[in-house]
This record gives sequence, C-alpha cells and structure tokens, in this order.
Amino acid sequence: MQKMDYFFKPKNVAIIGASRDQTKVGHVIFRNFIEGRFKGKVFPVNVKAKKILGRRCYSSVLDINERIDLAVVCIPSKLVPNVMEECGKKGVHAVIIISGGFKEVGNNELEENTRDIAKKHHMRVIGPNCLGVFDSRTGVDTIFLPRYKLERPEKGEIAFITQSGAVGSVVLDWMAKRGYKVSKFISYGNAVDVDEADLIEYLSKDDETKVICAYFEGVKEGRKFLNVSKKVTKRKPIIVLKGGTTNAGTKAVSSHTGSLAGSFEIYTAAFRQSGIIQADNMEEIFDFARTLSKQPLPKGRHVQIITDGGGFGVLLADEIIKNGLELAEMGKESIERMRKEMPPYVVLKNPIDLTGDADTEMYRRALESAINDRNVDMIGLIVLLQVPRLGGDVVETVINAFKSSNKPIFVISAGGEYTEVLKKSLEDFGVPTFSYPESAARSMKILYDFAQKSKKANK
Amino acid sequence: MQKMDYFFKPKNVAIIGASRDQTKVGHVIFRNFIEGRFKGKVFPVNVKAKKILGRRCYSSVLDINERIDLAVVCIPSKLVPNVMEECGKKGVHAVIIISGGFKEVGNNELEENTRDIAKKHHMRVIGPNCLGVFDSRTGVDTIFLPRYKLERPEKGEIAFITQSGAVGSVVLDWMAKRGYKVSKFISYGNAVDVDEADLIEYLSKDDETKVICAYFEGVKEGRKFLNVSKKVTKRKPIIVLKGGTTNAGTKAVSSHTGSLAGSFEIYTAAFRQSGIIQADNMEEIFDFARTLSKQPLPKGRHVQIITDGGGFGVLLADEIIKNGLELAEMGKESIERMRKEMPPYVVLKNPIDLTGDADTEMYRRALESAINDRNVDMIGLIVLLQVPRLGGDVVETVINAFKSSNKPIFVISAGGEYTEVLKKSLEDFGVPTFSYPESAARSMKILYDFAQKSKKANK
Repeated sequence: MQKMDYFFKPKNVAIIGASRDQTKVGHVIFRNFIEGRFKGKVFPVNVKAKKILGRRCYSSVLDINERIDLAVVCIPSKLVPNVMEECGKKGVHAVIIISGGFKEVGNNELEENTRDIAKKHHMRVIGPNCLGVFDSRTGVDTIFLPRYKLERPEKGEIAFITQSGAVGSVVLDWMAKRGYKVSKFISYGNAVDVDEADLIEYLSKDDETKVICAYFEGVKEGRKFLNVSKKVTKRKPIIVLKGGTTNAGTKAVSSHTGSLAGSFEIYTAAFRQSGIIQADNMEEIFDFARTLSKQPLPKGRHVQIITDGGGFGVLLADEIIKNGLELAEMGKESIERMRKEMPPYVVLKNPIDLTGDADTEMYRRALESAINDRNVDMIGLIVLLQVPRLGGDVVETVINAFKSSNKPIFVISAGGEYTEVLKKSLEDFGVPTFSYPESAARSMKILYDFAQKSKKANK
Repeated sequence: MQKMDYFFKPKNVAIIGASRDQTKVGHVIFRNFIEGRFKGKVFPVNVKAKKILGRRCYSSVLDINERIDLAVVCIPSKLVPNVMEECGKKGVHAVIIISGGFKEVGNNELEENTRDIAKKHHMRVIGPNCLGVFDSRTGVDTIFLPRYKLERPEKGEIAFITQSGAVGSVVLDWMAKRGYKVSKFISYGNAVDVDEADLIEYLSKDDETKVICAYFEGVKEGRKFLNVSKKVTKRKPIIVLKGGTTNAGTKAVSSHTGSLAGSFEIYTAAFRQSGIIQADNMEEIFDFARTLSKQPLPKGRHVQIITDGGGFGVLLADEIIKNGLELAEMGKESIERMRKEMPPYVVLKNPIDLTGDADTEMYRRALESAINDRNVDMIGLIVLLQVPRLGGDVVETVINAFKSSNKPIFVISAGGEYTEVLKKSLEDFGVPTFSYPESAARSMKILYDFAQKSKKANK
C-alpha cells in the first residue's frame, strides 16, 4: 500500500477528539465508523472519557496497543501540533484534520507548524478545515454532519474532490437524493499537505473511479496541477467547477480561504490546454459526470430525437443545434419499417413524434430502429410519463435498450412525484436521466467532444 | 360576464364525449368535474350511455333542459362540426375542443369549418388539439391525464398558457411537485379561435393573476400579439419561453403543429420592444415568475450576500457580477453592531460568512442588519441546512424576515430530502427559493430590470 491508500482503506482508525456529546463533531464521526459499513477497528481518543458508545476510550493515540493507519483529528486547533507529534511517534500513516482555526483565520504559523510535523514523520495529511473523506465502499466517513440532515450517496464511479466543505456537503446530500452514485469523496480544505493534484493523481489510478469531479476556488501549485491533469485526462475525464470567476468572487475567496483565486481567463485557458472539462454550475458537473461514466462513446454528431411530446422535441432540436451537433436523418428502410409498425399519426421525421398516444411498444420499436440505423450516432429520448397510454413498463424498455445499445441514449423526463420515482429507478439501473432538453444537449456535446479527443489520442 | 369568462367560471358544463370507460379522455374529464372543487352542474353527453358515474347521461347537448355555459368536446374530430352546430343552437357561450385530428394532421378544411360554425353562433373556442383549462379556484379542469400521473398545483398568482400540451402537462405536474402555485392554466393547441393574444389580454384583467407565463412555438397574428403585449407589460409581467429557436427546431415545429415558427431573432427583438421577458428554459420561467409575483421591487442594484458556506458565497458573488449587478457595501454602523452581536469567526464583509457554525440567531441578526442598511437593495440569502448547529427554526426566521422586509430576499438552499422538505415549507409560505446561485442571480437581474422599467413608466 502507498501512504495515500490509508485515507481510504485503513484497517485501524483512531478518532482523536471522539466525544460522548451527540452534538459534537467527534461524536458524529466516531458513530459514522461504528454504525456504518466500515469493517476495520475504530479507537476513540479523548483525555476525559472512559467509554464512548460502549467502547473503551484512550487518552492518547500512544496508549493504543495496535498499529494505527489513519487518525481523524477533531480537537481545537491549538492542540493539533501536539497530537500530530503523538501520531508521528505512533507511526500513523495518514491524518485527516477536520478542525478549523488555521490559515483561514490568519493562523499561518500554526498551519506551517502542522505541515512541518507531518513532513518530519512522513505522514500524509488531508485538511485542516475540511469535511475529510467519504469512501462509499470501505465505509470511511469523516463527514461530521448527521445523516438525517445529509444523506450519503450509494457506491458508484464518480469521484468528487472539493476545497469548500459547504459545496461538498450539498453535493453529497444532493447526489444521494437524486440517486447519483459516488466512488470517493474528499473535502480537502486548506490543503496543508495533500492537494487537488495529489488527489487527482491518486484517483486516476483508482479502478472504482471512472470520472473525477472537482470544485475549487484556486489551486495550490499551478504547474503541478496542470502537469498531472494533462496526463490524467488522456485516460479519465476531469470535470471542474471553478469558484471565484469574477473580481467580486475572487475577493470573496480571499476572505474565505485566504487562498488566491487568480484570473478566470488564465484558468479557463489552462483547463482547456490540459483537457479539463469546465462546468458552469453544480448541476452541469453531474450531468457531465454521469454521462461520461455511463454512456458509450458516439461515432459522430448526429442525434435522433424520439418524443411523445411535440413541444419537448422542438426544444431539444433547438438545443442540439445550438451546441453544434446535428439532427440525424434516418435511412429509408428504417422509416419504412416503422411506418408499417406504427400507427399512422406517428410523425416519422426528426423528432420522431409518437404523440400523446404513445405506449411502451411504440417506444420499443422506435428505439430499436434508431439503434440499428447507421445514420444515427446518439439518441435523445424524451419520455413524458404523464400521457395516458404509457405505463411504468416503459422504464424496463428503456433500460433494456440502454444496456443493449452501443450508442448513447439521453433520457429526458420531467414532472412530479410519479415521474421522479420512475426516473430514480432509471438512475438505479445505471441510466442517466435529464430534466431539461438543454442539459441533455450540453452533455451530448461534452460526450461528443470527449469521443473525438479519444479517437485522436488512439490514432 | 364576457364570453371568455365562461371558460373559467361557468355554472353549467356539458362534457360531450363523456365515457364510462376509465381509460377514455371523456371519462377522466367528467370525473375531474364531479370529484374536484367545481361547484356548478355537470352534464355528461354520450349517445350510447344511459348513466355515467351514477349521473343521467344525455344523447345530445340539445336534450339538456338547463342552459349550458361551457361545452367540453372530446369526440373523434370528424364528428366535431355537427356537435358544434348543436352547441350553437343550444346557446353555449364557450367550447373547449380537446380532440386532435385537425390542422396538425393536415385536416385544414375540418378546422376552418369548425371556426366558421363558432363564428356563426358567436361562440368562443379553445383548441382543438389541446389539454384545455385548469382553473385552480373554480375547479374547471379539462386536463385528461389522471391525477396519479399528473398532480395539480395549488391556487396561486402565476398564469400559464401553452401551445404545446406536452409542455403544459409537464409544467403542471412539476409546479405541483415543487409547491409552485397557479392561477389559471390554458393549453390552447391549434388556436382555431382563442389565441395567445386573447388569453394574455384576458389574464391581464384577472385579479388572481400577477404574472403571465407562456410557452409557444409561433404566434398566430404577430401584430395583434405585440400590441396586446405592449399594453399588458406596463401593468403585468409577461414571461415567454419560445420553442423553435433554430432552423432544426423550426422544422420540428412545422411537422408538429403545422404552424410557422419564424426567425428567432425577429421574435427576440419583438419581445424586447413589447416588454416581454424571455426565458431561456423551463426552469427560468418559474424562477422569474415566482420572483416577480412575490418579491418587492428593489431600489437599486446592490446585493448583500449572507451565507453559511463560503464556497456558495463565492459562486453567488460571481453570478451577481456576471449579471451586471453589484455587491453592496454595508454601512459602518451595521458592521460594528454585528461585530458586537456575532462570534469573532464570522466574516463581516460581502459575503457575510456565518460559517458552518451558523445558527438561527446569527441568521436573524444578519438579516435584520441587511434589511435596515440603506446601502443594501437586495439580499442573497444562502442557507445550507446541512450544518450542525442550524435548526429547522431558521425557516420561520426567514419567513418573518421576508414578510417584514421591503427589500427582495433571494433564498438559496440545496441538498437532499431534509432540505427539500424545508424548502417546500418556505414556498408554502410564499417565499421563493432557488437551488443554484446562478438561477437566483438571473432572477435578481430580471427583478432589477423590471423595477427600473416600472420606475420610468411611473415618472
């Protein structure tokens, strides 16, 4: 194992600052480990308590008789250096410092001191001033927000790293609610040691991660970040949402993390050079990430739309064109076959408009034809579940088509509770769904660009 | 009463094509009237049935002994002219033709024939090829989609008119799910008689409607539409999402409704001239509509941000600047007072960063200061409910601030189930909420522009 592995798959973990008080960070984190899916051993460390949640408590990490791979530190900042020294003596490999009160409030010396101790003892550190790590597979979970307020997403293939704990907490909660799945989540805060470049490099070799997403306001070492990214994006997509894109935003950054945000134009140019996909907002990150982790790559830019609502077909056609893609023109044979199979009122152009009388069988046939037609590179599938003759079994038809197709299928569906439930079951079976034509079309474009880039790289 | 009133507040309604078969449009509509909040009399008309849902059925509208204000027609298209003649003889004031099978499939003559009969008998007609009307107050509901698939929103102040039934059905379902409220909803389809301009004019005089929203792909009579809109937007905002903004979209329109979409640039210019607010997508329509119907008008462009998550504050600051607004600089006295009242780690700049240790009392004080500071025109209030010390009672604090403030407050909150539940209670109490900094900032800009326009108009 390399050092970084101990953040995600430790055997023995010490929670330094574990607490009996349910409202304390150290209580919530300790509870996460003993009540979650974590399979290793967890040792609470607290100078005052004898037992926490029925487990024997230690007054120092040095009192623990077994080796410790990972220490999670949630104690007042001024006590951190001393505890770090103890971790060093103990031979701890990795430390997550949750506590705030360092550089972000002007305590630069305390932060440098912490860095020096870590270096001296060859420990890797995530934080301080962060949420730390959530690993959906091993159950490492240092997110100190209670589960009723912040749900945890299921295991998947999207990694997310974030400088901002606030953005991170919303992202996790939001992914869980929508059925989006995560491989590893890291909130790295002040990045006293492990920074965004280290994490990207690590995640690039992580088999469980197919796409790397990041939110940050600035990077610690520009050149290192770009070199790593350039290498990684050849194999795995990196999607970044950059905060602090205006002067006012940049000012807000400096009073918030004490880091320099830098000019947005410079970042945008650098991102492009190193193959990073830039998202304009939080929703786009996940639209792009789900697309890139789940969809096969398209051969070209021609999209066939299938819809049961004319208006939605029109909106999607508009957005496809605005994004520089084109509408496919299906072959004569496909059209003729569908003409025989479909009721006469179905419009067999692009969009194929199954109309409000659509049923599951019509969707099946239209999908089959589009998948088999060689003029079609991608499919925009609008399924408005409100129409009277369309049953919930259309979900199964869509899942089957998605699984058997070597062409990307972008499912767009919007509505209330009934629709949301069926959309979530599509997500559960690995089919990315979209609520709006424009978000689907943006993702088509990103996927097309990524396919073109991959083609070039493999030549 | 004017003729148009009979669409929305009829006393006696005939459902022509009412059916015993639960899967039929004529059954669902009849059931809507007898099981919903409609207080008038409903008469099923069906040549074959004696009784439907226990009510006596009539073989023709002419057999009904009482006067009929509104007839809802859901029978095969070729039978429509005959039934229209009968309605004319009966003295029906208003007819909603749900049935498709007219101009949209090339039956132009049938459509013109229908128009002529309506004219001859001085009847107003909505449709054909539409969902018709949903009036949240009177209970008129000709939406033929069952309630378990398509929820109905509660009564409110936003009217929505749509050419596309598909877009309309999604909109209704979606509004209900999110707690957005509607005054009147009209899907007008082919617009054989009543068109978008007639509806806008009618809604402009409707006291229950504060904002008029519309989706269409083209308008029937350009000059009439623009003249009406120009007049109306002086009093009430009109928000339009236009489908068919590209050549491909336009082509899709023509195979969908048979109407001409026209050049997007021409529409955009015309919209601007007549004071119409153009939305870029479906979500924006409702962001703008909720903002314009609920928020007081701001005096200027200076926004104070209050947040418990630094990253979100940065993103909002960026978006405010991108939209041509500015960050407020609060007065010395405000800052000094907050400094005394707040913990030392709170950042008292713009954004005011209450940090992840925020509690309800801190929000109350920050809101109070911003509301009372004369350098602040609008407030961007980010409330990330995941943080540990913030209780659900922050919702009450926000509602109180919103109700007592004469400055617009834009609440931004994102997350999972816990957050969604609290957001919905804000919506229920009339506080518009946003999930993303960028959508809040776009709405701030729209509100600011509307305020400037109103100021000019009142000079």
